[in-house]
Amino acid sequence: MTVKAYGARAADKPLESLDITRRAPGDHDVQIDIAYCGVCHSDLHTVRAEWAGTMYPCVPGHEIVGRVSAIGAHVRDFQVGDLVGVGCMVDSCQHCADCDAGLENYCDGMVGTYNGPTQDAPGHTLGGYAQQIVVHERFVLNVSHPEEQLAAVAPLLCAGITTYSPLRNWQAGPGKKVGIVGIGGLGHMGVKLARAMGARVIAFTTSESKREDAEALGAHEVVVSRDAQAMAARAATLDLIVNTVAAPHDLDAFLSLLKRDGTMVLVGAPATPHPSPQVFNLIMKRRSLAGSMIGGIPETQEMLDFCAQHGIVADIEMIRADEINAAYERMLKGDVKYRFVIDNATLAA
Amino acid sequence: MTVKAYGARAADKPLESLDITRRAPGDHDVQIDIAYCGVCHSDLHTVRAEWAGTMYPCVPGHEIVGRVSAIGAHVRDFQVGDLVGVGCMVDSCQHCADCDAGLENYCDGMVGTYNGPTQDAPGHTLGGYAQQIVVHERFVLNVSHPEEQLAAVAPLLCAGITTYSPLRNWQAGPGKKVGIVGIGGLGHMGVKLARAMGARVIAFTTSESKREDAEALGAHEVVVSRDAQAMAARAATLDLIVNTVAAPHDLDAFLSLLKRDGTMVLVGAPATPHPSPQVFNLIMKRRSLAGSMIGGIPETQEMLDFCAQHGIVADIEMIRADEINAAYERMLKGDVKYRFVIDNATLAA
Repeated sequence: MTVKAYGARAADKPLESLDITRRAPGDHDVQIDIAYCGVCHSDLHTVRAEWAGTMYPCVPGHEIVGRVSAIGAHVRDFQVGDLVGVGCMVDSCQHCADCDAGLENYCDGMVGTYNGPTQDAPGHTLGGYAQQIVVHERFVLNVSHPEEQLAAVAPLLCAGITTYSPLRNWQAGPGKKVGIVGIGGLGHMGVKLARAMGARVIAFTTSESKREDAEALGAHEVVVSRDAQAMAARAATLDLIVNTVAAPHDLDAFLSLLKRDGTMVLVGAPATPHPSPQVFNLIMKRRSLAGSMIGGIPETQEMLDFCAQHGIVADIEMIRADEINAAYERMLKGDVKYRFVIDNATLAA
Repeated sequence: MTVKAYGARAADKPLESLDITRRAPGDHDVQIDIAYCGVCHSDLHTVRAEWAGTMYPCVPGHEIVGRVSAIGAHVRDFQVGDLVGVGCMVDSCQHCADCDAGLENYCDGMVGTYNGPTQDAPGHTLGGYAQQIVVHERFVLNVSHPEEQLAAVAPLLCAGITTYSPLRNWQAGPGKKVGIVGIGGLGHMGVKLARAMGARVIAFTTSESKREDAEALGAHEVVVSRDAQAMAARAATLDLIVNTVAAPHDLDAFLSLLKRDGTMVLVGAPATPHPSPQVFNLIMKRRSLAGSMIGGIPETQEMLDFCAQHGIVADIEMIRADEINAAYERMLKGDVKYRFVIDNATLAA
């Protein structure tokens, strides 16, 4: 089936309206009419080939929400009309230790929602800046938020799970002090989620102008990371830091805020490495520097349910599909509070 | 009391025979006639002021074994004649959360066995290259090895606990694949200990010449880390790596050998940072890069008991006190299998 999409024909070309094809649903497939798709920084990195290996045409988008419009013969858990979501993956090997553990995100055969290998035309996956998508049922999530919140649910599928997973894995909760570094698309979700989990939340930002916002999002304390005195006052006091900043920066400034046995988890990967962290900073308090990448499917469902239960959605700015190139430019300047979401109905125009 | 010691009067001076004083034992002190003292690379770093803050005269040595020669009025757990050991610490605040957890090594008030603050003359602690030492009972360990092994027990007090602690903290044991990077003073203990804990042990060395030795120490596999094919064959297979190499080197080569959720623990701190590790390497498998520093007193006792039970000691080369300067030069060339130990009886000469 041919559907309208928005994507780029080359790294140096703007995104434009494209016609793409989607496969007919197989026995285990779910066909989704996409209502909204969030705009992630990874979309821009991929479209512009800032990471190696972009295949064109490139249709990004992995924060997908919509309604089931058809199901395969063997699909039992979804029905036509259901509100559903799709995140960063549409397939994996489905039989390795990682997949068996529900951590398909760490499977070597994980297939990204866009720019991943597929037998479908054109030979690589095409993402959510499209009217429709067809996905194996294992990678489809149930959305139980009220329908009027649907657009603001979209960013949970990447920004939400990317911060939720490390918060859960490293046991954020009551009695824990949790730092969130960077108050952007990921960070604003990290603050909301850590707060809802019952942790004491300290937001770190380079920008004094985000103080009120961070407090409104749920931060108990806001620290401007250039304020050496405010940083020093919090030395060795945090249990966990989720660091969402992908630009290279001084990790030691944050590592030194961790208590003994504390962990800082990086969820953003810079194009060039961070300045090398001081080994003494790790050794002196048995600290860890870790990484985490999105989350597995069962945990993504748990996150969506947790958010529905706690009334959590992303803070979004809705755009038309033909505003995407301008939105990318604004995203590069940090000029978005806190996630652009495409109204996919505008693709038909 | 005045005793003979060996130490340096300045960073650019060789070690020489010195007379130092030890305090009379207080109510909670144990006075130890030192039989042997191991030679750690930290001794050399400190004596030569390669780390900041060396105070002179500097008498190094924190791998101390000997016999109790006097005890304070309130000491109950030690008697004159007992075989005992002292490691890297001789005091701490004794009332913080770290001390309460038996992790005095992470206490901000931890006092090093040498070059630490003290009210004793000359105002900083003097270590185990001496005939005698007086230490608070909390920091004295019981040695249950046979007396004829005493010299080879000495290195357990630093090299042993420094590798034992991360192996225990990150659960080395049956069913786990554990890498030990660097087969030197620390690494040779790491191999022995990880093997005794029941793990499958993979030793990594830059030198083909250490293959047989590493196998004899207990390694199930030995990998020459310059062998790209041997390294690639082990990608994503290890649960834990204890990295003992303090010289700056490529951490990614080892991080990429970790399974999902694996951890590489650094126990050596280079004078200049390692090349910055790739964040993708951490994120893609939720890996951690951690640090660990020696170990707490209860864990050090546990380690000594574990070693006595499993017949584990260090591989040593005994030297006279007046051979220490030559031994330092050989240590810099890696020309020791695997730890020099001073026969402190030769201090009297």
